[in-house]
Amino acid sequence: MSQRARPEDNPLREGLRVGGASEPALFTIFGATGDLAQRKLLPAIYNLAKRGLLPPRFGVVGYARTHMGDDAFRRFAKAAIEAHSRTPIDERFWPAFASMLHYHAGGFDDSAHFHALARTVDGLDEQIGGGAHRVFYLSTPSSFFPVIVKGLGAAKLNRPTALVRVVIEKPFGDDLQSARALAETVHRSFHERQVYRIDHYLGKETVQNIYAFRFANAIFEPIWSNSYVDHVQITVAESLGVEHRAAFYEETGVVRDIVQNHLLQVMALVAMEPPAAFEAESVRDEKAKALRATRPLVFSDSVRGQYGSGYVAGEEVLDYHQEPKVPADSNTPTYIAAKLEIDNWRWAGTPFYIRTGKRLAKRVTEVAVQFKRPPHLPFSREAAEHLEANSLVLRIQPDEGISLRFGAKAPTPTLSIRSVNMDFQYGSSFLADVPEAYETLLLDAIRGDSTLFTRQDSVERSWEICDPLIEQWQTGQPQAYASGSWGPDAADELLARDGRRWRRP
Amino acid sequence: MSQRARPEDNPLREGLRVGGASEPALFTIFGATGDLAQRKLLPAIYNLAKRGLLPPRFGVVGYARTHMGDDAFRRFAKAAIEAHSRTPIDERFWPAFASMLHYHAGGFDDSAHFHALARTVDGLDEQIGGGAHRVFYLSTPSSFFPVIVKGLGAAKLNRPTALVRVVIEKPFGDDLQSARALAETVHRSFHERQVYRIDHYLGKETVQNIYAFRFANAIFEPIWSNSYVDHVQITVAESLGVEHRAAFYEETGVVRDIVQNHLLQVMALVAMEPPAAFEAESVRDEKAKALRATRPLVFSDSVRGQYGSGYVAGEEVLDYHQEPKVPADSNTPTYIAAKLEIDNWRWAGTPFYIRTGKRLAKRVTEVAVQFKRPPHLPFSREAAEHLEANSLVLRIQPDEGISLRFGAKAPTPTLSIRSVNMDFQYGSSFLADVPEAYETLLLDAIRGDSTLFTRQDSVERSWEICDPLIEQWQTGQPQAYASGSWGPDAADELLARDGRRWRRP
Repeated sequence: MSQRARPEDNPLREGLRVGGASEPALFTIFGATGDLAQRKLLPAIYNLAKRGLLPPRFGVVGYARTHMGDDAFRRFAKAAIEAHSRTPIDERFWPAFASMLHYHAGGFDDSAHFHALARTVDGLDEQIGGGAHRVFYLSTPSSFFPVIVKGLGAAKLNRPTALVRVVIEKPFGDDLQSARALAETVHRSFHERQVYRIDHYLGKETVQNIYAFRFANAIFEPIWSNSYVDHVQITVAESLGVEHRAAFYEETGVVRDIVQNHLLQVMALVAMEPPAAFEAESVRDEKAKALRATRPLVFSDSVRGQYGSGYVAGEEVLDYHQEPKVPADSNTPTYIAAKLEIDNWRWAGTPFYIRTGKRLAKRVTEVAVQFKRPPHLPFSREAAEHLEANSLVLRIQPDEGISLRFGAKAPTPTLSIRSVNMDFQYGSSFLADVPEAYETLLLDAIRGDSTLFTRQDSVERSWEICDPLIEQWQTGQPQAYASGSWGPDAADELLARDGRRWRRP
Repeated sequence: MSQRARPEDNPLREGLRVGGASEPALFTIFGATGDLAQRKLLPAIYNLAKRGLLPPRFGVVGYARTHMGDDAFRRFAKAAIEAHSRTPIDERFWPAFASMLHYHAGGFDDSAHFHALARTVDGLDEQIGGGAHRVFYLSTPSSFFPVIVKGLGAAKLNRPTALVRVVIEKPFGDDLQSARALAETVHRSFHERQVYRIDHYLGKETVQNIYAFRFANAIFEPIWSNSYVDHVQITVAESLGVEHRAAFYEETGVVRDIVQNHLLQVMALVAMEPPAAFEAESVRDEKAKALRATRPLVFSDSVRGQYGSGYVAGEEVLDYHQEPKVPADSNTPTYIAAKLEIDNWRWAGTPFYIRTGKRLAKRVTEVAVQFKRPPHLPFSREAAEHLEANSLVLRIQPDEGISLRFGAKAPTPTLSIRSVNMDFQYGSSFLADVPEAYETLLLDAIRGDSTLFTRQDSVERSWEICDPLIEQWQTGQPQAYASGSWGPDAADELLARDGRRWRRP
């Protein structure tokens, strides 16, 4: 989100007047030849450069085991950007951009390589005038995180604290214990404030807009509580199956893959109290508070599902068990529906229902705030028989926007009040190119703004919320649901029990 | 608005199950050859018939001084409907419709004529089976109202109370005293509950929708008060001048023409407390309470204007003084802007600014609820520098709809919150033919539903609000404003004084 701080608040931010980063920076990618680097990081850096948002003095260091020189890395990067960038390569701009790209071959577990990397980075730093901010981006399998942060510390690449950040991709552990162990390792080399745990969901414009929607408007906050909200539904529906990721997915399952990170983070944004200031610690304090007040997932208030065969967008698709590398007796859940309760003054008694799964009817992420019915309807039963309670839907993707459902008089001779929508479409109000989440988050990391990154206390609390259920789901079987459906029937029953229904987005 | 009441509440309403009126009815128009009858009443009755909303046993009696027979009146009506109906005449349907039209020639001030009318009406009543509801519509100059109601009483056409209604067109007096005198005269022949004072504004779908919007939704009422609303702006802007009505207008002026009736009625709808039930007395009690709490217009909080020459829609138009029949020294106001204050718990300290005038920049009627700014913005000054306070605009005409202005994050690299609109368009949500206000109101009169008609206490209170200013404006001169502008500069100053600005719709 990267709000421009007042320079007087933070001398590091001085000069950030035009939106981009202005102070010199070096951006090192561990795992520079990997999938994430190719699909997301290199294209994001390219687009930031193209938009004029990188500092004038800037360099990228690709780090990986493959041996190659700068030129080969530049060709590699060009191919990656050509394949994945949201904008085509501008050939006139390319040479200037390419000259910022450098490569350093090395292993992740050899301290000699880190000392060599330090010499490369120091040399580049000197070349661009010195005093550069340094971002180390760990785009490797998480099993390498411990050795890399250790190597960075050993080579003193963790200093000076004010200029150096390390960006870690999820997973941040796979349960509370491993998350704590990882944090301990990281904290041996880095202060928590240097650690940028990235969750690309939080960089999405529509997710960031939840802050703006809630805290830049005077009219929603007064009704944003258990006094007026009946319940909230958060849906993260995917239409794809596990694709080529079954081996990973078998280890992960839907709770670790989506709930512990994206879904609980979005829930925290919706539920949090207004922060005093839009800066990293204030915002993250409030998110952490919301998560601390959230009860751990409960077996009896959760439904697990696993997709069967079926049709998605007219195409026949396989049962989860038939996917390559999935054991025949796999009980890995690919779907969850659950009720979350938040024990604080604002939300007690107003549940947050969450659901996410693969191979659902369509790809859609949305937050639906379902309001209570009016306390008293002065109209006749017949006039209001088609009237639904108000709802506000924040559409995160696709069809980004916000809609408000409310009752209006239909032009009928007998009074009849119907539910209609008031709609805002992000795309038609803002014609500017919408940046990718990674662009936003990399720029924030370069600028040293950690507002949109996840703090360790939230990570740990999220595991506390998820761990008991993950544990209980080790045994037993998920319910099968047809691919292309909205999940198992039990998910409907979960809400029906409370007299409620899932939306069909 | 004509809500279908529960039959158990009111035996008269039994059978009103399909939206239309079902009990037999006779509709008498005094002034059946006049302008209003031609332009509005006859077309409205035709369209009600075409929509199948009139009772199967129904008749119209045209009453005027011109001598003609039923056939001539049917030809007359057909010409009027051809010229003014919103739908073309269906020739196959016409003969059945025409057979319901009757004519009775007579003067307004001769009791013999009323006795003859009674015989005609009784005869028709018998023809259609007896027991018909009887609506007498006074579509004559208001100077005839007293003699007509007296004539109706003398001929016992005011009985039985439960079946007979008299519809009166404005003006309901031209000040408090004359309004009371008129009511006294009317009440000598009719009970107040038989008197239907029509204000076509209140029959507009978008005006009726104010009830639905406020009382069928749980989310607006909590913020509909001085705690959250900074002020309300009600605009009734006309682009036309006085046209051929200068003689009338010279006697009337803008306060009597628009403020005392339409504008204060709309204000009452916006300001009123929720009624316990949507039926005539509950609704009208709440409107009356809102008006009683409204302070009379104050000279120092009002601006009067009179249009000068200028350009409207690219055409040069005359100064008010140059209009035919306007005296050279006329000080008749054609524009008013004023601040109204409502002394109750809900609205104290939250002013309602009203403005209405002729020859303004465009024809538009709207209610804009301007909310307060958020109590605290966590964002930087720069991020929120383009952020406006929330506003909700109920567009009554044209472009009927509702829009909500709110702050959203722009997809910029530095946080910037911009004001955007969420919009609801009446026309695109409801594809059904939108009836004319007169159709709604005539059907309500036929059905005996007076919810949308003005009760005498509100009429009187509205005069109490307007009379002092009308009196003070007898002397002195209005400020000139250019035709095609938004009124005199002093109107802007009126709000600027309070740190506010008029919208430019």
